[in-house]
Amino acid sequence: METLKIIKIGGNVIDNVEALESFLKGFATIQGSKILVHGGGKLATKLANQMNLPVKMTNGRRITDANTLDIITMVYAGKINKNIVAKLQSYQCNSVGFSGADGNTIVSNKRPVDPIDFGYVGDVKLVNTETVDILLKGNVTPVFCAITHDENGQLLNTNADTIASELAIGFSKLYKTQLYYCFEKNGVLLDIENDDSVVENIDSEIYKALKEDGVIADGMLPKLDNCFHAISHNVEKVCIGKPEMLFDENTKHTTIQ
Amino acid sequence: METLKIIKIGGNVIDNVEALESFLKGFATIQGSKILVHGGGKLATKLANQMNLPVKMTNGRRITDANTLDIITMVYAGKINKNIVAKLQSYQCNSVGFSGADGNTIVSNKRPVDPIDFGYVGDVKLVNTETVDILLKGNVTPVFCAITHDENGQLLNTNADTIASELAIGFSKLYKTQLYYCFEKNGVLLDIENDDSVVENIDSEIYKALKEDGVIADGMLPKLDNCFHAISHNVEKVCIGKPEMLFDENTKHTTIQ
Repeated sequence: METLKIIKIGGNVIDNVEALESFLKGFATIQGSKILVHGGGKLATKLANQMNLPVKMTNGRRITDANTLDIITMVYAGKINKNIVAKLQSYQCNSVGFSGADGNTIVSNKRPVDPIDFGYVGDVKLVNTETVDILLKGNVTPVFCAITHDENGQLLNTNADTIASELAIGFSKLYKTQLYYCFEKNGVLLDIENDDSVVENIDSEIYKALKEDGVIADGMLPKLDNCFHAISHNVEKVCIGKPEMLFDENTKHTTIQ
Repeated sequence: METLKIIKIGGNVIDNVEALESFLKGFATIQGSKILVHGGGKLATKLANQMNLPVKMTNGRRITDANTLDIITMVYAGKINKNIVAKLQSYQCNSVGFSGADGNTIVSNKRPVDPIDFGYVGDVKLVNTETVDILLKGNVTPVFCAITHDENGQLLNTNADTIASELAIGFSKLYKTQLYYCFEKNGVLLDIENDDSVVENIDSEIYKALKEDGVIADGMLPKLDNCFHAISHNVEKVCIGKPEMLFDENTKHTTIQ
């Protein structure tokens, strides 16, 4: 089986024009089949503020009402996605932007309103590989934003880390899939202040212990849950670290086992 | 050669939720290869107003500064395009949203700033059919918004009628292309107040005479220029009329000859 790399970039890379351009320049040079998944960064909140729309949070998580879904669709699928595609074309990487609705690729269920109504948020139900695979076979790189749909015409806001892991799992029947989460740290850190304190290999027992000790907390928990979900569902390799890990094998990072 | 229908829908269909849904339901049933091109309607101006951004016009035409380009990209490629794709999926029409940057499909030159600086507006230079054709062959329907790029990473605002005619011309080397401009009237009218006064067939001589008499004016002039450009560049058939002309051959419309 051929290898397919699924690479997710997060907030800090998206929010910084130079960091994004530098990443995309490198990404364009990666050989073989690849899929890029991007988050939204702070641009959606900025647009909501410009439009005087309140950002509603419950338990620290954003509620996606109809106006918020419009903003997310405009920012993620419009501004961010199309600018990434245009940049990749300028680096001779032929790409096509995707939401989960395009090619009917990622189908979600709207999250149940009980106990908390998160609004138009989708939990991934299934991945259809067919349309994307036609493009991969044609040497085209799909670029996914974090939006899915319910097959009844409704777009849904979906976590970008989850999109990346579900794509890696879905494509594992056709490719040896490798999943890379790129963010601003070197991976899982024993001391969040010390970028050299990387846990280079982590398995579910180490994860459990680090969780119990409170070393791993907050945003790293759902990210690592996505990692372990992927590695236990036929994804060949899962790594977390800075984008540099893609281009230099000596860059420290965390590998999930 | 197989037939490829390129169908463009304009402002009044986009702005009305029911009209759009009804159109898409019909569009989904059209057999054979097809491409949808959509304009932006009034939503971009509405968003600019919500964000307190001034709409700058020169000689009745919109100037696309950087903020306006962002708005257009968000509204056209984000909100409108992804909602159309999600609706088409719900009608079992497998579609993928495109800007001209996706698949490097439509490359434009930024319009010269002399005599008038229109800002980030693109004049189409060339159409690359390859990526879109991979999808057409896979029975997938591309849905184009009116944005192109310059191959150097810059997105450009481009007239939707022009996108449709340039796609029809570009694909004429692979398909018998048929171009349909759908709007709120039955076609070219001798009396703009009378929807029965349709000019059913129009050639360049009739066009010239109607222009000189002032019967054809304003927005119809660039639309018809696009039509004649297409019909003189290997497009098999060009029609203007209401969307109903696609589904009922007895619907009055104008055919370009």
